[in-house]
Amino acid sequence: MPEKELKKHMPKEERKEYTYNKLKVLGQDIIDDVVKSKIPTLSVPSRGTGNIHYDPDKRYYVLGDRHSRRSMGNVKQIRKLGQMVCTANFCKDLVQREKTATIREMYYISEGWGVEFNTQQESNTVGEDLEVMLGATREELGLMPEEDGASVYGNITLMDDDVEINALRAGKSGYTISPTIDDVDFVDHDVDRVIAVETMGMFHRMVQEDAYDKFNTLIVGLKGQAARATRRFLKRVNEELGLPVYICNDGDPWGFHIGQVIISGSAKLAHVNHELATPDAQFMGVTASDIIKYDLPTDPLKDVDVMRLKELSQDPRYKTDFWQTEIKKMLKLGKKAEQQSFSKYGLEYVIDEYFPTKLKEMGAEI
Amino acid sequence: MPEKELKKHMPKEERKEYTYNKLKVLGQDIIDDVVKSKIPTLSVPSRGTGNIHYDPDKRYYVLGDRHSRRSMGNVKQIRKLGQMVCTANFCKDLVQREKTATIREMYYISEGWGVEFNTQQESNTVGEDLEVMLGATREELGLMPEEDGASVYGNITLMDDDVEINALRAGKSGYTISPTIDDVDFVDHDVDRVIAVETMGMFHRMVQEDAYDKFNTLIVGLKGQAARATRRFLKRVNEELGLPVYICNDGDPWGFHIGQVIISGSAKLAHVNHELATPDAQFMGVTASDIIKYDLPTDPLKDVDVMRLKELSQDPRYKTDFWQTEIKKMLKLGKKAEQQSFSKYGLEYVIDEYFPTKLKEMGAEI
Repeated sequence: MPEKELKKHMPKEERKEYTYNKLKVLGQDIIDDVVKSKIPTLSVPSRGTGNIHYDPDKRYYVLGDRHSRRSMGNVKQIRKLGQMVCTANFCKDLVQREKTATIREMYYISEGWGVEFNTQQESNTVGEDLEVMLGATREELGLMPEEDGASVYGNITLMDDDVEINALRAGKSGYTISPTIDDVDFVDHDVDRVIAVETMGMFHRMVQEDAYDKFNTLIVGLKGQAARATRRFLKRVNEELGLPVYICNDGDPWGFHIGQVIISGSAKLAHVNHELATPDAQFMGVTASDIIKYDLPTDPLKDVDVMRLKELSQDPRYKTDFWQTEIKKMLKLGKKAEQQSFSKYGLEYVIDEYFPTKLKEMGAEI
Repeated sequence: MPEKELKKHMPKEERKEYTYNKLKVLGQDIIDDVVKSKIPTLSVPSRGTGNIHYDPDKRYYVLGDRHSRRSMGNVKQIRKLGQMVCTANFCKDLVQREKTATIREMYYISEGWGVEFNTQQESNTVGEDLEVMLGATREELGLMPEEDGASVYGNITLMDDDVEINALRAGKSGYTISPTIDDVDFVDHDVDRVIAVETMGMFHRMVQEDAYDKFNTLIVGLKGQAARATRRFLKRVNEELGLPVYICNDGDPWGFHIGQVIISGSAKLAHVNHELATPDAQFMGVTASDIIKYDLPTDPLKDVDVMRLKELSQDPRYKTDFWQTEIKKMLKLGKKAEQQSFSKYGLEYVIDEYFPTKLKEMGAEI
């Protein structure tokens, strides 16, 4: 069984120990080299664009086989190597103590390491290097981003440590996906699907109109670009619970891409897309066709929108007929529309008309 | 009893009817004028800077007595008046149906009114005009902002419709304050205070280190500038539950001001500060004195920081000895520090040392 598959089937505790050992081995290898009077080196998978490929079978970006060696014998690489070892040591401590730290906290703590990071960006990069080298996500290493994930509303019950949470009973703004979402277990659910929407305006509309009940769905409020924790949550409900995931965003290149990153992952995070991408998730709208069909209020495309749409049309993730057609249509139309623009027909229209029609078109039984 | 006091003591249902009637009267007055062949006019309290004063007794900005008249007989004012009447009518419908709409949804819905808004800003202003004219908050009128409020963690039980929520049992990211926070009742609590922090990084640190238990406190993660719903929540826990509120932000002019807006309200919202400001809330840090005392990692003040600090020192809300001293000290020091910079001394330091010391200095019994 490949390592990625193996890890998937490990219980949480075992997975932690597995990560802990990987971090330990990293240091032990260096010590062994020193004892044998060898110059310590580390092999790091390359994250350059030349080593990132779109895998049509997996339907997301993956990292190729290229590696680069970092050697203590190379004056230029010593500082970087020192930073990696100190960061790994810090992470080992976090995993052992079952703690997490924000990448900002690590940046400040590193002041005492004597291999100081000049910028936050520099320390973030080392965190990603460790991810790719160890085949562990940053979250498994205990390093957390600042921001929380999406809001979830609907009939799902989760267990976080010893606390049971039902996402219908956490308030009108729902349950917030925290960066430690992988420590959360799914206990029970009574929904047939998941609908993720870009804005909290639409999220609250759906809650208020009982969309969770009408469509027997979880409602996920993405708040723009989906955080890593949100992407992890969507992947888990899709794969562990077998729930189809639909994404409804603004009808513009940015809305398209927020959806696409959930579906096919990003190139930058090619090394962790197998943990983050949900290739079976489907983009529901707002499409250029929707803008025409529903005669939505629009804004003209700006130059930057046009440029972005042309970029997307060349992107391997957008090579399907659906995307090629919709991108061309939007460019020809010269217009974009927000998801809240359905309210032109009244507050309830999006729930009473748009969602049911669209879900049926996409083959959902509602 | 003045109207503001009266409203405070009304049960929720009565308050809704009160708002509904105000909206109805607004339209009825216009109809009455028309029936009497009088030219309809509306009297709107002025929101110009000349009519905004800092009230040292109330300790927040208030609106003065100046009014301007808007008349249907004035060609320049007809469109604005039409917008107000249509917006009021839309709000009346919302209140009656117990619904809310985002200000973005209203903007789109207004397309059908024939008194179209040219920009979102224009429709927002009309919403605020209605607030000030009717003496009702935008939320009471059913108009909601897009964004949710802060995250709350700790032992408080709330009732939202028929759902009971405990903020210790809503997940690691806590209970999210929704824009409709005024519809939420406080059922029970077992805390002695509230500590609000600027970043979610610090929020998660406090949750992880059991700060809610150690300091018997609610933890509130502000996520930068506090949303109206957050300010309303902090005011309510302070006044209804008698809990002292402490605010801990980044040690820079922006962190100061995020705190100050919670304490003394903003000038722009002078007409609703009596619903939003918490004059008894206290700024805890990070102060310039803290930066020196704890030898925190700093960044140099930028020109824009210096300019902002000088502005603050002239602001009536910063006329206390405490603020004057701290602003001068920071200007002299030429440096600022983030709240997460305490992690220089290890992840737990801020919980084990800084918070207890500071709370004691401020007279809290912990």
